Amino acid sequence: MTGFRFALHATDGAARTGTITTPRGEIRTPAFMPLGTAGTVKAMLPEQVRETGADIVLGNTYHLMLRPGAERVARLGGLHKFMGWERPILTDSGGFQVMSLSDLRKITEEGVRFRSHIDGSEHFLSPERAMEIQRLLGSDIQMVLDECPRLPASEAEIEKSLALSMRWAKRSKAAFGEQPDRACFGIVQGGTFAHLRKRSAEELWEIGFDGYAVGGLAVGEPQAVMFETLDAVMPHLPADRPRYLMGVGKPDDIVGAVLRGIDMFDCVIPTRAGRTAQAFTREGPLNLRNARHAEDTGPLDAHCACPACTRFSRAYLHHVVKANEIIASMLITWHNLAYYQDLMADLRTAIAQGRLAAAVAEIAQVYARPAEIEPGNGSV
Amino acid sequence: MTGFRFALHATDGAARTGTITTPRGEIRTPAFMPLGTAGTVKAMLPEQVRETGADIVLGNTYHLMLRPGAERVARLGGLHKFMGWERPILTDSGGFQVMSLSDLRKITEEGVRFRSHIDGSEHFLSPERAMEIQRLLGSDIQMVLDECPRLPASEAEIEKSLALSMRWAKRSKAAFGEQPDRACFGIVQGGTFAHLRKRSAEELWEIGFDGYAVGGLAVGEPQAVMFETLDAVMPHLPADRPRYLMGVGKPDDIVGAVLRGIDMFDCVIPTRAGRTAQAFTREGPLNLRNARHAEDTGPLDAHCACPACTRFSRAYLHHVVKANEIIASMLITWHNLAYYQDLMADLRTAIAQGRLAAAVAEIAQVYARPAEIEPGNGSV
Repeated sequence: MTGFRFALHATDGAARTGTITTPRGEIRTPAFMPLGTAGTVKAMLPEQVRETGADIVLGNTYHLMLRPGAERVARLGGLHKFMGWERPILTDSGGFQVMSLSDLRKITEEGVRFRSHIDGSEHFLSPERAMEIQRLLGSDIQMVLDECPRLPASEAEIEKSLALSMRWAKRSKAAFGEQPDRACFGIVQGGTFAHLRKRSAEELWEIGFDGYAVGGLAVGEPQAVMFETLDAVMPHLPADRPRYLMGVGKPDDIVGAVLRGIDMFDCVIPTRAGRTAQAFTREGPLNLRNARHAEDTGPLDAHCACPACTRFSRAYLHHVVKANEIIASMLITWHNLAYYQDLMADLRTAIAQGRLAAAVAEIAQVYARPAEIEPGNGSV
Repeated sequence: MTGFRFALHATDGAARTGTITTPRGEIRTPAFMPLGTAGTVKAMLPEQVRETGADIVLGNTYHLMLRPGAERVARLGGLHKFMGWERPILTDSGGFQVMSLSDLRKITEEGVRFRSHIDGSEHFLSPERAMEIQRLLGSDIQMVLDECPRLPASEAEIEKSLALSMRWAKRSKAAFGEQPDRACFGIVQGGTFAHLRKRSAEELWEIGFDGYAVGGLAVGEPQAVMFETLDAVMPHLPADRPRYLMGVGKPDDIVGAVLRGIDMFDCVIPTRAGRTAQAFTREGPLNLRNARHAEDTGPLDAHCACPACTRFSRAYLHHVVKANEIIASMLITWHNLAYYQDLMADLRTAIAQGRLAAAVAEIAQVYARPAEIEPGNGSV
């Protein structure tokens, strides 16, 4: 691997800001990666995603292997060309979606057999196949296959699952092989058990990855438990590699994780909320379906430069939401992604200037206000 | 009225090219007006609509009076500001949608009472109210209220309906009053009866309008009948006013009507087809859901400059159609509107250069090819 580098520019407490360099472009960290699940960030054109400030998007191995298929994407020139996004792409390994979306899962040492949620067809995902798919897609950052146990689970169940995930991590790394310019990330598992998380982190470090993700969080546990788990993991990850908290989260989740040293995030919330009239603003979250917006000529967020905020009123957004117009999803998604990217930019600047604590206090105040929305957890 | 002017630049046979000037911008004719039914051209942002080459969009009185309501739009600063489209807007009078969408219509001399298709609420539309609504919306070109009889109908029924429409046209014109910079168009009715069409045109000319529409066509009759009806109408309309064929049509319908001297069109086809995977191309129409596109790396239309054609493959468009992704509607709608605007630009140029017959032969050849699509008729 020659083209993938991570450089730290500044720290503020445990928080860090830096740059991941890839041949397809730089990723400023802390970074938020919009979901491009099935080859599109829903309701957005690629250049619009870029306009929000995104450096990288996420693609889902599970969705893309089922439709249009990894070999087909490869024949068509790879995922970047296919979806019109020439900047970096991170792909997950499919493990999480197999657990959350597919039917009839059967997990063995070899891998996981499951039925597609689209057409019921049978598929098999092993660490080797998961890595092959990501290579065929042309992913810049490829994730190991892990088992994502359903919660609640006993300590013994989590420990057994973790052991399998660690054996799969080793096989994934071997299958990734040598791919110049691309990176392979391990995934820390272990539920909410600090000693299992520590063991997982140490075993992954021993294998050696280009970056380290924390998986199995944002699956319904309280925020405090998520933060405690991060506190247990972070000291056991190498400081010179990027750290990625998978599937997180709401703005205050992200802020808390950045404070603990996380560098990368992905989450369905801003895009899914955008399709259900839920908007994040600097005055707090709000639901545009609410009748109180019907004659509000003000902008959605006076401090936002996105088209939804500069060219339309809250009254218009309310109207197109009520009328189920596609433009409602287009505009509110754009705004939410712009909001998230603005948040990440503010965090990066605050870290670089050593004033993260003050910035966080502001954000916490905004998100402590009564919320109109409940966007749900971070799973796809 | 001071700011509304129509200037003819060239004719080629009966076909004409010119410019309608309004304080909100010029409309190059022959013009195609995308439907902005409920305050949005579906799946498009306003600047994208403009990028396709559109000079004017259409708003629907019926939809807007029900939601968000004309008085509300007026309080919010008018339809242009509300929907973020500062160029000209033409509004219909609601008559056609009352017939096609609402329940429990009761037509009297005074007007039409009906129930909303949205919530069943009762509403009343008279010529005076139709014009008041369009004034409240701030429409640049306002249409008289007409009765649109259901077909098939006897000659006696059409004649009776026409007489009512002509009395309503007179009341509409009176209600329009004096609105500097805005125009009021009459609507020729009379079914497919040449003598009734002639009578209607003459009566409207006698009242005196800023432009003349032909209504009650593109409601299922054969194309030849539509063209025959136009042939019966056109000699009886003043040459110095714009002529608008309502709800038309497919490309070959438009070409045939331009040949007969029509200046303005609106139709749901390009936008509705865009949401159902149906695309117009210079090689003929096609359905992107068809599996033959699954590995086609070529562009949708090699001669089109829209984003769908320049940044994505047919294979990608096929994929996002199959996956029911919003981007499919966004891209194919954009392409279809660009295709329609390119067609209008080609027609304008051909007329100006006196070579319309040759241009029409090319277009007819394209649209004589076996079609994958059946976009239905031109009604909303």
